[in-house]
Amino acid sequence: MNTSTATPNGPAHVRIFDTTLRDGEQSPGCSMSPQQKLVMARGLADLGVDVIETGFPASSQSDREAHALIARDLRDTTLAVLSRCLPTDIETSLRTVQAAAKPRLHLFLSTSPLHREHKLRMTREQVLESVRKHVALARGHIDDIEFSAEDATRTEEDFLHEVVAVAIAAGATTINLPDTVGFTTPEEIRGMFERVIANVPDADRVVFSAHCHNDLGLAVANSLAAIEGGARQVEGSINGIGERAGNCAIEEIVMALKVRNAFYNLDTRIDTRRIVPTSQLLSRLVGMPVQRNKAIVGANAFAHESGIHQHGMLRHRGTYEIMQPQDVGWPSSQMVLGRHSGRAAVEQRLRALGYWLEEDELKLVFEQFKALCEKQRVVNDDDLQALMQDSSASDGYRLSSMTISDVGSRANALVELSDPDGNRVSETAQGNGPVDALFSALAAATGVQLQLESYQVHSVGIGADARGEASLSVHCEGVEYEGTGTSKDIIEASALAWLDVANRLLRQRRAEKQEMAAA
Amino acid sequence: MNTSTATPNGPAHVRIFDTTLRDGEQSPGCSMSPQQKLVMARGLADLGVDVIETGFPASSQSDREAHALIARDLRDTTLAVLSRCLPTDIETSLRTVQAAAKPRLHLFLSTSPLHREHKLRMTREQVLESVRKHVALARGHIDDIEFSAEDATRTEEDFLHEVVAVAIAAGATTINLPDTVGFTTPEEIRGMFERVIANVPDADRVVFSAHCHNDLGLAVANSLAAIEGGARQVEGSINGIGERAGNCAIEEIVMALKVRNAFYNLDTRIDTRRIVPTSQLLSRLVGMPVQRNKAIVGANAFAHESGIHQHGMLRHRGTYEIMQPQDVGWPSSQMVLGRHSGRAAVEQRLRALGYWLEEDELKLVFEQFKALCEKQRVVNDDDLQALMQDSSASDGYRLSSMTISDVGSRANALVELSDPDGNRVSETAQGNGPVDALFSALAAATGVQLQLESYQVHSVGIGADARGEASLSVHCEGVEYEGTGTSKDIIEASALAWLDVANRLLRQRRAEKQEMAAA
Repeated sequence: MNTSTATPNGPAHVRIFDTTLRDGEQSPGCSMSPQQKLVMARGLADLGVDVIETGFPASSQSDREAHALIARDLRDTTLAVLSRCLPTDIETSLRTVQAAAKPRLHLFLSTSPLHREHKLRMTREQVLESVRKHVALARGHIDDIEFSAEDATRTEEDFLHEVVAVAIAAGATTINLPDTVGFTTPEEIRGMFERVIANVPDADRVVFSAHCHNDLGLAVANSLAAIEGGARQVEGSINGIGERAGNCAIEEIVMALKVRNAFYNLDTRIDTRRIVPTSQLLSRLVGMPVQRNKAIVGANAFAHESGIHQHGMLRHRGTYEIMQPQDVGWPSSQMVLGRHSGRAAVEQRLRALGYWLEEDELKLVFEQFKALCEKQRVVNDDDLQALMQDSSASDGYRLSSMTISDVGSRANALVELSDPDGNRVSETAQGNGPVDALFSALAAATGVQLQLESYQVHSVGIGADARGEASLSVHCEGVEYEGTGTSKDIIEASALAWLDVANRLLRQRRAEKQEMAAA
Repeated sequence: MNTSTATPNGPAHVRIFDTTLRDGEQSPGCSMSPQQKLVMARGLADLGVDVIETGFPASSQSDREAHALIARDLRDTTLAVLSRCLPTDIETSLRTVQAAAKPRLHLFLSTSPLHREHKLRMTREQVLESVRKHVALARGHIDDIEFSAEDATRTEEDFLHEVVAVAIAAGATTINLPDTVGFTTPEEIRGMFERVIANVPDADRVVFSAHCHNDLGLAVANSLAAIEGGARQVEGSINGIGERAGNCAIEEIVMALKVRNAFYNLDTRIDTRRIVPTSQLLSRLVGMPVQRNKAIVGANAFAHESGIHQHGMLRHRGTYEIMQPQDVGWPSSQMVLGRHSGRAAVEQRLRALGYWLEEDELKLVFEQFKALCEKQRVVNDDDLQALMQDSSASDGYRLSSMTISDVGSRANALVELSDPDGNRVSETAQGNGPVDALFSALAAATGVQLQLESYQVHSVGIGADARGEASLSVHCEGVEYEGTGTSKDIIEASALAWLDVANRLLRQRRAEKQEMAAA
């Protein structure tokens, strides 16, 4: 196959539209604060994605804040926001997105019969009229308009062609045809793109885009097939996070296009050596590890266990490896810092890990780095990442000390905290094991009751310098909160994670109060 | 597409060949003891796979033991073993596999130029001769012979056709064309199968099989494309475990064929309601969790977070769901046991979870179940799974008691164990945090030094009945060992996991000594 002759709609490169911060962040356990989104957006820009979708401004204040932070920081990347086809949504979205140097408004409306009937309760004509009106409205204010025909793969093709024609005529510049429920097959989606592009007037004036979900494990294959059918933008997320089984994993589609370049004859602008660091940055920010056998970014992706494979690998790497670990950013040897390392070295390493700090942030982190060097001989990437996690907790309750005893079947915990105003609080509690006792003591000290949803501890690093990383999630008033904490002591890490969640919850409550007071 | 008219080689059903216990078990962190393989094999038979590959007998005593255990137990499922094209391998494999009621020998030889030159150092003619000779040798003893042309997708097509023709002429009954390095695309592999089946003499007398790896995230799509090209067997594993990024995930290919039955027009014999229990059984046996956004079996696969999706779902499930959670075995309501539950109820529930116990095993577990009922009001599936984990540690060191104190920066641990002969051992140690101190004390008490590779703790269940589950892995003399432990107290769970690993290591050393003494 040679698609370079079949590119009616754009140059022979595939745009990567990242929706980690929008569709990805919508998935349970992946919510991010505006600050976390900023950190992630810097990592994505470094990776070289063409478009970053920052959120859904009409649905949340937090998404508006995140967009403002990102727009101030990233001036070279197109920033998109999602908006329903509603005048009020569009107004809010425009106000938000125009802070970007390169703003894009991403409008969507469902087009499938199932969605028209049960979700929208609209006729075909009403859908067409809504697309025409709202795309034109938005285009009156902004030049870069993407329109998504939600559930396109389950839409009647004649109607889909009408919708796309209307959207193009009204001024859309990118047309996205999502496989919203992860239902399609490669053959079907290739044909859908081919026919839309062949039949809709002015199709050559816009970029076509695929947005595939992974419910049947086909998101990457379907995105590749869409490209074969003429799509020149793919929407995806890091580690494939997103609603339900997630979106097309950017790391997989990018490496498929690169490794099989002779077959697809198309490039992306991704710096593939940033793939693994970006994946790890996301895992840490949201506290969701990737499984070991995940393609490209899983711990086993380049591991060769069996004797036969090792034997082949020793003779020729190509026998069992189609790409090199360092092509996707797996470190061949980790850079290690220590007490003699200066601020520039620390800053450079943090950038390599995806953290771009302001001057005052860097100063704070460097102090913590020096303190850590007093405790341990070398500071590696994992330690630096752990430091970055700790320093993100700025206000709220802080742990001063804790004492645990665990004898037989009952454990006791004593905690001392400083509250947001700097006052000391201390409480004791009993429980089934040290963590149970500890969490009860923390609840008593802060007055916050957390209903634990999940709780995990990982070790970070090996040997004497190992650190425990605890992550936990809770449900509170219908919202899921995640928190993490790291320490050499996993019980202490657990306490820090608990406080991280409690502080997020308290900040959220304060923000809601302020919003209500302002309204 | 309608493939029912294009099935030259077999009835219109796709055989599922499970390689969880062979290719899957070969991946780092997924090794299983013969007993664990038996438990998993029972789960796979319950799921309804057509063939179970139990291992690679010539490479390991443990695989021979596992096959013997499984062959005694499962009389209705075809059991395959892997074998190189070497007379000594074939002899060992035949001796092993013939214990099965329905034995299959699975021979493989690389056919690609890269493998011929760098791994085998054989010419085309030598490869053809080896295939002819060894397939015929095996067929002299057994009727069900599968031949795999390793790295088929990177093999010259004319030569691949020659190899397949020779294998069929020599008596092979299934021809497997693996994408060994996960390199191919759906279009390529569909064409490869179509052309082999069209051109090779007697192709209609055998079943063609695909074995796809997931290095570029395409294993499921490539397997589906192979089926479109005429394959009627797919090799895969539960949760997609396997070398590097793993194999085709059985849960995904099965559900793709089921959900898109109108498109593919082919069935499998899988009982899809057993998918999630089987996935969870494997996760627990090897201590490797699946990521939340994994298709079908991930915790988020059927979760709907965003307001828009929830709104649509409330009006009509079909708006965002193409299959129902209960279709793949997610419990709509968990069955809960308690102190009034009898042995039959416990046995039935254990079977539903994939555990088929002998009379004496069941007796032991039921006693533990009753003891647990004294401690907590209800016993749910997670608790039962945890019990099964604990009861698998039959011999070796056992934890009698532990005392931990954690004040300021130093923690102290005191452990009391009973050794394999029933004697008491007790030791104390200090460390950075309670787990560090605990592990040092356990090392001192047992004399086993473990170099920790990873360490995780999860909560199992919610609220007052929650239990902590610790898993850890170590490297020792080039082999990776995994262990798990569960308790209401995560520190105790960690101690149990440490002892689980130490006991495995000690058993392995004893077995090696016995083998050396026998040799």
